[in-house]
Amino acid sequence: MSIKTPEQSRTIMTDLVLPSETNPLNNLFGGELLARMDRAASIAARRHSRRIVVTASVNHVEFTRSVPVGSVVTVEAKVSRAFRSSMEIYLDVWIEDRESGLKTKANEAIYTFVAVDETGRPVEVPELTPETDLEKERYNGALRRKQLSLVLAGKMKPKDATELKALFV
Amino acid sequence: MSIKTPEQSRTIMTDLVLPSETNPLNNLFGGELLARMDRAASIAARRHSRRIVVTASVNHVEFTRSVPVGSVVTVEAKVSRAFRSSMEIYLDVWIEDRESGLKTKANEAIYTFVAVDETGRPVEVPELTPETDLEKERYNGALRRKQLSLVLAGKMKPKDATELKALFV
Amino acid sequence: MSIKTPEQSRTIMTDLVLPSETNPLNNLFGGELLARMDRAASIAARRHSRRIVVTASVNHVEFTRSVPVGSVVTVEAKVSRAFRSSMEIYLDVWIEDRESGLKTKANEAIYTFVAVDETGRPVEVPELTPETDLEKERYNGALRRKQLSLVLAGKMKPKDATELKALFV
Amino acid sequence: MSIKTPEQSRTIMTDLVLPSETNPLNNLFGGELLARMDRAASIAARRHSRRIVVTASVNHVEFTRSVPVGSVVTVEAKVSRAFRSSMEIYLDVWIEDRESGLKTKANEAIYTFVAVDETGRPVEVPELTPETDLEKERYNGALRRKQLSLVLAGKMKPKDATELKALFV
Amino acid sequence: MSIKTPEQSRTIMTDLVLPSETNPLNNLFGGELLARMDRAASIAARRHSRRIVVTASVNHVEFTRSVPVGSVVTVEAKVSRAFRSSMEIYLDVWIEDRESGLKTKANEAIYTFVAVDETGRPVEVPELTPETDLEKERYNGALRRKQLSLVLAGKMKPKDATELKALFV
Amino acid sequence: MSIKTPEQSRTIMTDLVLPSETNPLNNLFGGELLARMDRAASIAARRHSRRIVVTASVNHVEFTRSVPVGSVVTVEAKVSRAFRSSMEIYLDVWIEDRESGLKTKANEAIYTFVAVDETGRPVEVPELTPETDLEKERYNGALRRKQLSLVLAGKMKPKDATELKALFV
Repeated sequence: MSIKTPEQSRTIMTDLVLPSETNPLNNLFGGELLARMDRAASIAARRHSRRIVVTASVNHVEFTRSVPVGSVVTVEAKVSRAFRSSMEIYLDVWIEDRESGLKTKANEAIYTFVAVDETGRPVEVPELTPETDLEKERYNGALRRKQLSLVLAGKMKPKDATELKALFV
Repeated sequence: MSIKTPEQSRTIMTDLVLPSETNPLNNLFGGELLARMDRAASIAARRHSRRIVVTASVNHVEFTRSVPVGSVVTVEAKVSRAFRSSMEIYLDVWIEDRESGLKTKANEAIYTFVAVDETGRPVEVPELTPETDLEKERYNGALRRKQLSLVLAGKMKPKDATELKALFV
Repeated sequence: MSIKTPEQSRTIMTDLVLPSETNPLNNLFGGELLARMDRAASIAARRHSRRIVVTASVNHVEFTRSVPVGSVVTVEAKVSRAFRSSMEIYLDVWIEDRESGLKTKANEAIYTFVAVDETGRPVEVPELTPETDLEKERYNGALRRKQLSLVLAGKMKPKDATELKALFV
Repeated sequence: MSIKTPEQSRTIMTDLVLPSETNPLNNLFGGELLARMDRAASIAARRHSRRIVVTASVNHVEFTRSVPVGSVVTVEAKVSRAFRSSMEIYLDVWIEDRESGLKTKANEAIYTFVAVDETGRPVEVPELTPETDLEKERYNGALRRKQLSLVLAGKMKPKDATELKALFV
Repeated sequence: MSIKTPEQSRTIMTDLVLPSETNPLNNLFGGELLARMDRAASIAARRHSRRIVVTASVNHVEFTRSVPVGSVVTVEAKVSRAFRSSMEIYLDVWIEDRESGLKTKANEAIYTFVAVDETGRPVEVPELTPETDLEKERYNGALRRKQLSLVLAGKMKPKDATELKALFV
Repeated sequence: MSIKTPEQSRTIMTDLVLPSETNPLNNLFGGELLARMDRAASIAARRHSRRIVVTASVNHVEFTRSVPVGSVVTVEAKVSRAFRSSMEIYLDVWIEDRESGLKTKANEAIYTFVAVDETGRPVEVPELTPETDLEKERYNGALRRKQLSLVLAGKMKPKDATELKALFV
């Protein structure tokens, strides 16, 4: 199975914020953005693995900027690290101002997908080799996040999460 | 401002999984479940604060069970801890088997909402007093999760996250 | 086949009124509420029968209160009486005021569902025994409504609708 | 205010049954059909009154035929009687077979709408004069149905519902 | 295979413009109108051919009038000419003013559909004989439009498009 | 007003084909693709003009390849020529095979948008200078297409459409 780069799975989803997706302040519902990011991340995971993929987990997501109705939102997704059958997908979300054309970062998010066969059983995925500095940084952080995920799910003891532990001690 | 209990914000959203919300394996898209949970959590936050509320963050979410089309899904949301203007909402997701009537846990999730005024500025919310054992456990964990959130967002140094640090050392 | 209580089929569907579901006065379309009630009622019928269920009829529904965009609407459905293969479902709809937290009754509705097998043929459902006073009252009214339904559909002669006739004479 | 005929409000809504509107048997959800009929009826009421209109009630509706995905469904709505500010709308629903071209009656339904001003207060609507035999029959039945509606809502005593009472005695 | 008239395929789709279908000026998105017209045209093509039909092309469409939210829009579709397995569908779109009841032409559009069997292969369709003057005019223009379509798709040399060429020389 | 390049308006919208958007052969409805392309084109026009933009017309569109449910579809839109207040947008649509990763051209389309102010009146837009060979070819063809559009709308006499006429003589 060949090794792939993050660039090969890069997925760009640019779309409008429609009135039906907004809360009482006329901003995009957090939940709608989570759903859009899930679709973009699933396409990136699929491009990397060429398999059916299913959402395994969503990492911590901060909503720091509100996204008003009528905004143009760009979700960019790339595989940041591949494990045996799971892939971590890193997403960057941008909104752009109509008048100035300025793009501002609205969000980052990290999803994990698993590649499966037609019966839903996990299958192996190609390895990933990061290229740019940012890709390398995200690649390295992925192991720490995987440990955090296992600890939070009660599948790993905190003391065994060596990567993570190093952060706090 | 009066003190409230988790029970007072309890929100139950039972609904079907419609064909338009499913992936190629005919299971509910992870993103759709995230959007449903966001709506349920926003109602719980609103019931606690009686204010306009906006999603601030989503904690780590695991998708351990797939949810097939036609399933009955119950999302139950309760405020687990109130801070100055933010509220942590704990969600439990259940699916039930049509033939046996059995309910199984599909998911847990934790969202944070902020109460705001009409201009979007944060406002204070009532305190919360947990009652049951489970509510107390979730109330206690909330501070640790808040620290984790601040650390991940780069707003708190890991060494100052005393609650969190205790886990690893 | 065991006897069941209305409580065992109780279904609560709390959700927001989204902007895409509103009329020119910014209130929930009557038709959208009918669709939500249909989904809630179908879940209650399914919980009682553990079968595939299809809508057989909708009783007379009054829309006495308008439901503004952004409202929290709670639809509560319970089986009120079981016949051979059909079930009457009684629905209560509440809206709550964000600021006061007050819940007001927006609506009542009565749907009838039929349990069917995979080929669409009617199958028997468990009997229902009402427990509370309200459940008993609704259970007793169900036969009168069934007769009214048969009369309106031309399947029963008015003079044979003894329960119903008693109302007018 | 001029007198109008049912023909002047006739509204035809032909559309496909989309996969997102179907139940586990791949037939149109009853609730979706109720929502479509509500939109068609509101257009007929608006054509008669040239006012903003809101759903006041839905009469008893039977679902006698299932409507499979991919069907062409035609909803035809006409005002059947006008009262002071309310209008009864009679709907006929047809489905047609793709191969034979045959149209079969799937459903009938009766909705009541009220004409309101911009503040939501009821306003007068034009009178209606039926022309065909069917229109006359439906016009005559409307008063009986209005009485039934008032009785069911507890706003009229059964013994005063003279039109209705005549049916049973 | 019998000959049919345009009237036999006439399809009327009257519906409201919902808030979820509008752009920042609160008018119907051009793309939404294109989607509605596609559904109406597909029903007309299906009524003519009694076959599964798929969109083959959309002719040039002008959007001359904006369609505000809350409008009643009527799309009327009729087959204007049948070729071997393809059909040209002519659509007229009307919007009506609530207060005056006046209908104004918003749009015209021309779609081409192909009739196919269950495997997607083209099948023959009945001939069409136009009846009214307008139907005859549209029937005659269809050949010119088919040539234009073939020229634009690079499947016919401009000099062989005799009907079309006559327009310019 | 500065001159811009096609690259500056380039808009990429990658998304899945959801089950709710498909016809009886389980392929994407032509009308849904038209609606997606309209949104992508409107973002490109907005990026070029930094104004509110509305769809003015859709050029001839061929649907040569069917797009099955579950496909990943990429719509790429760029302004191909700017006139006084209108912009021609050229769209390329690709679908990719999950297993081989191969991208195939599914479609091309050309939309025209007009930039308007808050009251809906046309405003001037920046000029466009094409850079690549393909951009130049599309830039040059735009005038011919504009003439064709004016001729078809009856706003220009065929004999005055010099660019277009040259094609046929």
